[in-house]
Amino acid sequence: MTFEEAKNKLSEFGRKSGALNHALSLIFHDGETAAPRGTGDNRGRTIEILSEELYRMTTDPATVEMLETLDAERDRLTDEEARITELYLEDLNDMKKIPMEEYLESEKLLNEASDVWHSAKVNSDFATFAPYLEKIVETKRRFAGYLAPEKDPYDYWLDKYEEGINREVCDSFFGSLREKLVPLIADAGRAKLPESGIRNGYYPVDAQKKLSVLLMKTMGLNPDRVGIAETEHPYTTSIGSHLDVRITTHYYENDFLSSMYSVIHEGGHALYDSGSPDRFAFTPLDGGVSMGVHESQSRFYENIIGRSRSFCEYIFPELDKLFPGSVSGVDELYREVNRVTPSLIRTEADEVTYCLHVMVRYELEKRLMSGELKVKDLPGEWNRLYREYLGVEPSCDREGVLQDSHWSGGSIGYFPSYALGSAYGAQFLAKMKETIDVEACVARGDFAPINEWNREHIWKYGSLLKPGKLTKQVFGGDFDPSLYVKYLEEKVRDVYGLK
Amino acid sequence: MTFEEAKNKLSEFGRKSGALNHALSLIFHDGETAAPRGTGDNRGRTIEILSEELYRMTTDPATVEMLETLDAERDRLTDEEARITELYLEDLNDMKKIPMEEYLESEKLLNEASDVWHSAKVNSDFATFAPYLEKIVETKRRFAGYLAPEKDPYDYWLDKYEEGINREVCDSFFGSLREKLVPLIADAGRAKLPESGIRNGYYPVDAQKKLSVLLMKTMGLNPDRVGIAETEHPYTTSIGSHLDVRITTHYYENDFLSSMYSVIHEGGHALYDSGSPDRFAFTPLDGGVSMGVHESQSRFYENIIGRSRSFCEYIFPELDKLFPGSVSGVDELYREVNRVTPSLIRTEADEVTYCLHVMVRYELEKRLMSGELKVKDLPGEWNRLYREYLGVEPSCDREGVLQDSHWSGGSIGYFPSYALGSAYGAQFLAKMKETIDVEACVARGDFAPINEWNREHIWKYGSLLKPGKLTKQVFGGDFDPSLYVKYLEEKVRDVYGLK
Repeated sequence: MTFEEAKNKLSEFGRKSGALNHALSLIFHDGETAAPRGTGDNRGRTIEILSEELYRMTTDPATVEMLETLDAERDRLTDEEARITELYLEDLNDMKKIPMEEYLESEKLLNEASDVWHSAKVNSDFATFAPYLEKIVETKRRFAGYLAPEKDPYDYWLDKYEEGINREVCDSFFGSLREKLVPLIADAGRAKLPESGIRNGYYPVDAQKKLSVLLMKTMGLNPDRVGIAETEHPYTTSIGSHLDVRITTHYYENDFLSSMYSVIHEGGHALYDSGSPDRFAFTPLDGGVSMGVHESQSRFYENIIGRSRSFCEYIFPELDKLFPGSVSGVDELYREVNRVTPSLIRTEADEVTYCLHVMVRYELEKRLMSGELKVKDLPGEWNRLYREYLGVEPSCDREGVLQDSHWSGGSIGYFPSYALGSAYGAQFLAKMKETIDVEACVARGDFAPINEWNREHIWKYGSLLKPGKLTKQVFGGDFDPSLYVKYLEEKVRDVYGLK
Repeated sequence: MTFEEAKNKLSEFGRKSGALNHALSLIFHDGETAAPRGTGDNRGRTIEILSEELYRMTTDPATVEMLETLDAERDRLTDEEARITELYLEDLNDMKKIPMEEYLESEKLLNEASDVWHSAKVNSDFATFAPYLEKIVETKRRFAGYLAPEKDPYDYWLDKYEEGINREVCDSFFGSLREKLVPLIADAGRAKLPESGIRNGYYPVDAQKKLSVLLMKTMGLNPDRVGIAETEHPYTTSIGSHLDVRITTHYYENDFLSSMYSVIHEGGHALYDSGSPDRFAFTPLDGGVSMGVHESQSRFYENIIGRSRSFCEYIFPELDKLFPGSVSGVDELYREVNRVTPSLIRTEADEVTYCLHVMVRYELEKRLMSGELKVKDLPGEWNRLYREYLGVEPSCDREGVLQDSHWSGGSIGYFPSYALGSAYGAQFLAKMKETIDVEACVARGDFAPINEWNREHIWKYGSLLKPGKLTKQVFGGDFDPSLYVKYLEEKVRDVYGLK
C-alpha cells in the first residue's frame, strides 16, 4: 500500500467507523431516555452486530497495513494526521490483543449488567447484581492482562482513564486530600449554619425545565447543537460528533438544586465536547481527551463557578421569578449550595465531602481488582468505609453500593478522575484569574470570557494533545493539588465565617 | 454457491441489513423527536454512509448469487423462506436498476427536502420548497422509468404502495365515493347540529398525556414494547423490529380531540406492526405488508371503533375525570367527533369529508407525475380543488399545499391508500361482526376480542402474504367499496338524525 493510498483509506475508515459509532451512541442514548422498557434485547442484538462490524473493520488486515504504512512515514503527516493515526493504532493494538469472542462477550455482559443493575438498584437487591459484578471484575482483570501483561491490572485501567495515573499517584493525592479535608469537615461540623427549607420545597417540573433552558443559555450552550433529556442518572454524550451533544438531568419536585447542578455539571461536559473545531468532526480528535480533563470542565462549571457567591448573586433573581419566595436571598442560597454535610449519595454531595465519596470507591476498586476484596463482601466494606470516612451509614444498598452506574457499565478506574478533575479545575482557575476577572463576569451572568479562555486553552485541542501534555501546558508547570485544597479551605472559611 | 451456503448467508444478510435498518430508523425518529434543531447535517452524513453500506451489501455479487441460488430451488424453501427471498429479490432488482449515485443523490435530496419543507411550512412559503418538489417529482418519474419502463410512472408508484392499484382502479373508486359522498355532505350541511365548545376549551398537556397512556392501555398496546413521543406530525415507526415500536402525537391545549384521535390512529398502526410473530423479527416478514392494509388498521381503530357511539360511552367518564365538565355527555361527544364539516386540514378532517381531502391529493399527484401540472401551478390548483370539492379555500399555503409531509419525503402515490384502507376497514368490520359483538366489547372498553380477530386474520401474517391475497382472504371475496359508502351513510344518518 502506498502512502497516498493509505491516506485515502484513512479518511474512508474514519467515515465508516464514525457512522457506526454514531449509530451505537444513539442506540445507547435512546435506550436510556426514550425507548420502551422492554426493548433491551432488540437493542442488544443490533449493538452486537454493529460492534462486531466495528471490530471487524478495525482489525481488518487492510486497516492494519494502512495504519502501519502511515506510522512508518509519520514525518510526512501533519500533526493532526499523526495523532489520528496514533489514536487508531492504540485502538487497534488494544483490539488485536483481546480475542474477538471475548470482546463481544464482554459487550453483551455490560449490556445485560446495566439492565440488571437498574432493577437491583430499584429493589435494593445487591445479590442479583453480584454475579454480574464478579464477571465484570474478572473481565477487567483478564483484559488488562491481555493489554498490558507487565502492569498491575488496576494501574492499567487508571492510566487508561487518565494517562500517567496509577495507584501510587492516587494514594499520594488522596492521602493529602484526606489529611486536609477531614479536619476541615470537622471545623465545618462545629460551626453550625442556620437551617434552610430550600431542599424541602415544592418546585413544579415545568418551572425546573425553564431553569434548565436558562442555565444552558447562560452557559453559552448552543441549543441548535446541544439537547437535553431526562434520565435518573444524568450524563453527557456526543451523537456522531461534537455537532450533536446531549445532556440529561433528573427533576425532583422537592429540590430544584439537584437538577440545577446536574445541568451545570453536564453543561460543562457539553461545552468541552461541543467546543471541538468543526474540522475534527468524525475523526478521533473530536471531543474531550480524557476523563480527568472532562471532569475538570464539568466540575469547574458546577462548583467553582456554579457554587460561587457571584453565581448565586446572578441566579437568585431568576430563581425568585421561577419559584417565588422559595429562597430568601443570595446569602441563604450561597450557604445552602455549600453546606458541608457528610451524606450517603455521591452525586448530591457538597463540594468538600465529595472527594471522600470518591476515595471510598477508589479504595474498594483497588482491593476488588487485586482480589483482596470479594464482591460478596463489598456492601459490608462500603458501609464500613462510609462510617469511617464520612460518619454515616447507608440503611440499604440502594443508598450504598448500588447507587452508581459506573461498575455495571464496566468503568472500573474511572472514579478517581472526578477528584483529579476537580483539582485540575482549581489549578486552571488560578491561571484564568491572571487575565480574567472571573467573579465579575459570573456575577453578571457573562460566561463568554471564561468560555473563551477554556476554548483557547483546552477545548480547541479536542483530543489532539495527550492529556498530560495538555494539562502541563495549561498549568504552565506541574500538577499541584495543593491549590485545590487551598481553594476548598477558603470556600469553607467563607461560607462558615471561620478564620 | 451451494443451497446450504446460500441459506446460511441469507440469515447473515438479514442480521446485518436488519442492524443497519435499525440504526437508520432510530436516527430518523430521533431527528424528528429529540435531536437539537441544528443537527441535520451531522445526521445526514451518517444516514448517507449507512444507506451506502446497505446499498453496497444488497447489490453485492455474492448477495445476488445467494438470492438466485435460493430462488432456483424455491421448492426446497419453507413458505417463509421463499417469501423472504422474494422480498429481498424485489429490493435487489429495484436497487440494481437505479444507479448507485442517483440512489444516494435521492436519499440526500429527501433528507434536505424534509428540512426545507419544515421551515417552508412554518413560514407558509411555498416558493422555497418548490425547487425541491420539482426535483422530487422528476426523480420519482425517472426512477419509475428505471424500475418499470413499460408502466406509467404514477401507476408504478400506486402499485408500489398498494399492490394491484393503478389510476383506473383509483378513478373508479374515488368516482363512486364522490358520487355518494357529495350529496351526503350536503344533507349533513342542511341538518344543523347543536354548537359545542369542546374544540375551544383548555386542556392541560399533562392531562392529555394521561389520556394518551389510558388510550394505549385500552387498545392493548404493550408499554414495554410501544413508546410515545411528540412531533408536529404524528407517525408510527418500528425501531429494528416489531419488538420496539414508537408512535408520536401532538398536543393542542385548546382541543384534546386532536391528540386523542392521533393516538388511536397511530395506535392502530402500532398494533399491526407489533402484532407480528416474534420469529419474524429482523426479517422482511416483520411488520405490516402494505400502506393500504396499514391504513385499514389505523383508520379502523380511529374511526370505526374510536368514533362509534359505544366508544364514546366507554371513554366519556374517563374524559370527565381528566377534563371535568368540559364535555356535557356522551351525546355531545358522539356528535362532536362525527360532525361533518368541510375544512382545510386533512389530519383534522371528519370521517366523511376525509376522502375528499385524499381525492384532491390524488388528482394533483396524478397530474404532477404526468407533467400536465407544473409545480409552480400547484398551490393555485390545490386551492381550486378545495373550493370545488369541499367549498373552502386556504388563506395561506401552510393551511393548503404545504400541510402534509408526504411529498417532501418522496411519498408520491401514498395518499390513495388512506382512502383504500378506510374502505378495507369497513369490509373487515362486516366480517368481524359475523362472530363478535363489536359494539358491546367497545362499550366496556374491552378490545381483546377485536384485537384477537385482527391478529388471527391480519397481524399474524406480517408481510408473509401479498396484500392482494391477504385482503381477499379476509374479505372472503373481492374488495367491495360499497360497504364503506354504506357504513358512512349510516353513520351520518345516525349522527344527524336523518332518515
